[in-house]
Amino acid sequence: MTPTVPHRVVILGGGFGGLQATLALRTAAVSVTLVDRRNFHLFQPLLYQVATGVLSPANIATPLRSLIKHQANAQVILGEAVGVNAKERTLHLAEETLSYDTLIVAAGGRHHYFGHQEWAAHAPGLKTIEDATDIRRRIFTAFEAAEREEDPLKRASFLTFVVVGGGPTGVELAGALAEIVRHTLPREFRRIDTTSARILLIEASAQVLDVFADELPRHAMAALAGLGVTVRSGTMLSHVDADGVLLRHGDLEERIATRTVLWAAGVQGASIGAIIAAATGAALDRAGRIVVGQDCAIAGHPEIFVIGDLAHVGGLDAKPLPGVAPVAMQQGTYVAKLIRARLEHRTMAHFSYRDPGSMATIGRHQAIAQVGRWRLTGTLAWLAWLFIHLMALVRFENRVLVLLQWTWHYLSWNRNARLITGNAPMPSPPAAERVIS
Amino acid sequence: MTPTVPHRVVILGGGFGGLQATLALRTAAVSVTLVDRRNFHLFQPLLYQVATGVLSPANIATPLRSLIKHQANAQVILGEAVGVNAKERTLHLAEETLSYDTLIVAAGGRHHYFGHQEWAAHAPGLKTIEDATDIRRRIFTAFEAAEREEDPLKRASFLTFVVVGGGPTGVELAGALAEIVRHTLPREFRRIDTTSARILLIEASAQVLDVFADELPRHAMAALAGLGVTVRSGTMLSHVDADGVLLRHGDLEERIATRTVLWAAGVQGASIGAIIAAATGAALDRAGRIVVGQDCAIAGHPEIFVIGDLAHVGGLDAKPLPGVAPVAMQQGTYVAKLIRARLEHRTMAHFSYRDPGSMATIGRHQAIAQVGRWRLTGTLAWLAWLFIHLMALVRFENRVLVLLQWTWHYLSWNRNARLITGNAPMPSPPAAERVIS
Repeated sequence: MTPTVPHRVVILGGGFGGLQATLALRTAAVSVTLVDRRNFHLFQPLLYQVATGVLSPANIATPLRSLIKHQANAQVILGEAVGVNAKERTLHLAEETLSYDTLIVAAGGRHHYFGHQEWAAHAPGLKTIEDATDIRRRIFTAFEAAEREEDPLKRASFLTFVVVGGGPTGVELAGALAEIVRHTLPREFRRIDTTSARILLIEASAQVLDVFADELPRHAMAALAGLGVTVRSGTMLSHVDADGVLLRHGDLEERIATRTVLWAAGVQGASIGAIIAAATGAALDRAGRIVVGQDCAIAGHPEIFVIGDLAHVGGLDAKPLPGVAPVAMQQGTYVAKLIRARLEHRTMAHFSYRDPGSMATIGRHQAIAQVGRWRLTGTLAWLAWLFIHLMALVRFENRVLVLLQWTWHYLSWNRNARLITGNAPMPSPPAAERVIS
Repeated sequence: MTPTVPHRVVILGGGFGGLQATLALRTAAVSVTLVDRRNFHLFQPLLYQVATGVLSPANIATPLRSLIKHQANAQVILGEAVGVNAKERTLHLAEETLSYDTLIVAAGGRHHYFGHQEWAAHAPGLKTIEDATDIRRRIFTAFEAAEREEDPLKRASFLTFVVVGGGPTGVELAGALAEIVRHTLPREFRRIDTTSARILLIEASAQVLDVFADELPRHAMAALAGLGVTVRSGTMLSHVDADGVLLRHGDLEERIATRTVLWAAGVQGASIGAIIAAATGAALDRAGRIVVGQDCAIAGHPEIFVIGDLAHVGGLDAKPLPGVAPVAMQQGTYVAKLIRARLEHRTMAHFSYRDPGSMATIGRHQAIAQVGRWRLTGTLAWLAWLFIHLMALVRFENRVLVLLQWTWHYLSWNRNARLITGNAPMPSPPAAERVIS
């Protein structure tokens, strides 16, 4: 039976976790308010394909309102959370205040520059649509600048790309860059040889993708080398500026002249996490994630859940779950079920993550995957990656569009979405140049 | 026979005219340098569909380099022209200087606010990809702001859209807005009724689309009314600010409270036109177009051609040709032929425009078209419009993508590309609001 005033669930963030929680509450006797800064759900795993000119932003983004159009118990509010009052149970947005009975915080993460926020200007990360079009602009502008540059050293620095971080995103970006310089661009320039471009992938650990098991990281490193990517493992970044990076490998330091540095190294919890922690007395871990119990709720505040990239489930001593979509989605489903159970005075078991397996793509016909004890590499892993990502795309329309563009890209090597757009459409003078000279 | 140093043709602008001239010189014994500020050719006639969330930017933009990839005698330079030295035959870019034997100026047009450049901030026009995503942001942000607004008068101003200019672009924008409020959004908001939104189309002449013949403008006005657009013909805009416009109809003045004003009223020649006119002694017409002879060349400078929206062909007294793609493309072909003829010491007849007919779309199943003595309206005209625009899209890939998205939009009324992106992702506080209060 629906009470006269339904239980009010406010969900902060329309990413994988928040959206899943919203949809899972569809038939519950609650009113759901989904709050997001953006008017769309973003399919982040394919963001690197926007950054490298294969897909358009709208192909991997779906308006939140159209997703909950037919869900009568849900509404969307476009807004940014600025605070929470845990005692009065209110979430404060910039322009209004929302009362909740249950709050689900699914605000995700942001780039982490390990205390070097000044690097952000020279080494953009990849979290938002704007990040992706900014990176796209930087990548394709670098070739334009190289084509026009007479000085061979400067030209070489425009043709040097440094990707920091050997996780899935860094590997995907480096692999895509390698395909761009070898297959997409070679016949399009008249003065430069794009195949002479250098692509460096910097990773602090001994191998890239080192959360993968057994021989998979080694396989990935070999595949990257085969694509022409120079992998620098066991290497730290010690400095970034407008015209280069400083790398440290043990006691050795090396300066690499480059105009394009992409950041795929660190992620930390969204800044609202600290505000919520302060308001509730919750602990934050070193990466800015909110520490919650096995039920995803904040200790002493069973009515506040944290899910997804912002959550550190099971206490500070528990190993944090990986920041991937399946974790967030399973937590969204779990919390929705728990809310229903509470309304029906039932109890529920703790949250436990069922790992569906992991995969990372490196390039055409090159991916790695592990599912339980299974290990997959090469074309089969790549096809599995394509299929799973295509199926996971929220909207049918997007699925067909993405498939069509992937097919076209596969056949032609072209990257038709490589528009240089945004605030700095001109490659000349490059922003970096202006600062230096 | 190819001379040792081929005749150097520099083409400024990769729009319809410049691209056509480049491609038409493919087999000529010349070297072609195509200069553009952007790295893509933009299919401007469909830009309004990006602004209203049906298509993505990359669907109507194609990288110039991929278009001339196989044209060995052509190269692309990304750069902005800042001057010309007609005596030394050099075109000056921000960062380099290009020598030419023949210069083709195809730099197009820009918005014209009739001396009120300050209106630009409140009434953006639609010429570039950035314009389109800015307008898209404004349109969809207005509904978000209305959904949150408590004050009924302010809410109504967020739900009032004013389109200035009853040419094809203004009519297309107004028609698309009407479909958005009636069909795309209604079930997506919980507090506002989007069908209560007002859409005003302001036109100074007695009727919209008044370059069309016979009963076509009247038909268009009736179709707009049927869609729910309020057409204010014979009406001038006398003021625009952040929260409204002032309209003048004869002696009557009326203030309309609105947060969204779109400019589709005036076009003038690109600013490089004035620089080139000054350097060559060419005359400019009142709309900033360069006056050229019947052969598209500047008087006294047979080696400098001006084509497309920036050209006023046949002298100041001749009626300027319409600023449409067929004119620019035919001039591009003509000039390419004339360059070949000169190299072969042949003469050629003057340029003459063969009008393929005109069409404008209003909304679903609603368009008008005239071809010679033929007049077409309604579904047939609309299907013809769809077909012709689809065929005209430069790349095969784009054609299929656009067709797919049109089909999906047709079936669902959804506008999946309506992302609120860019520098001001948050609708709250709206930029306008901040200025005023």
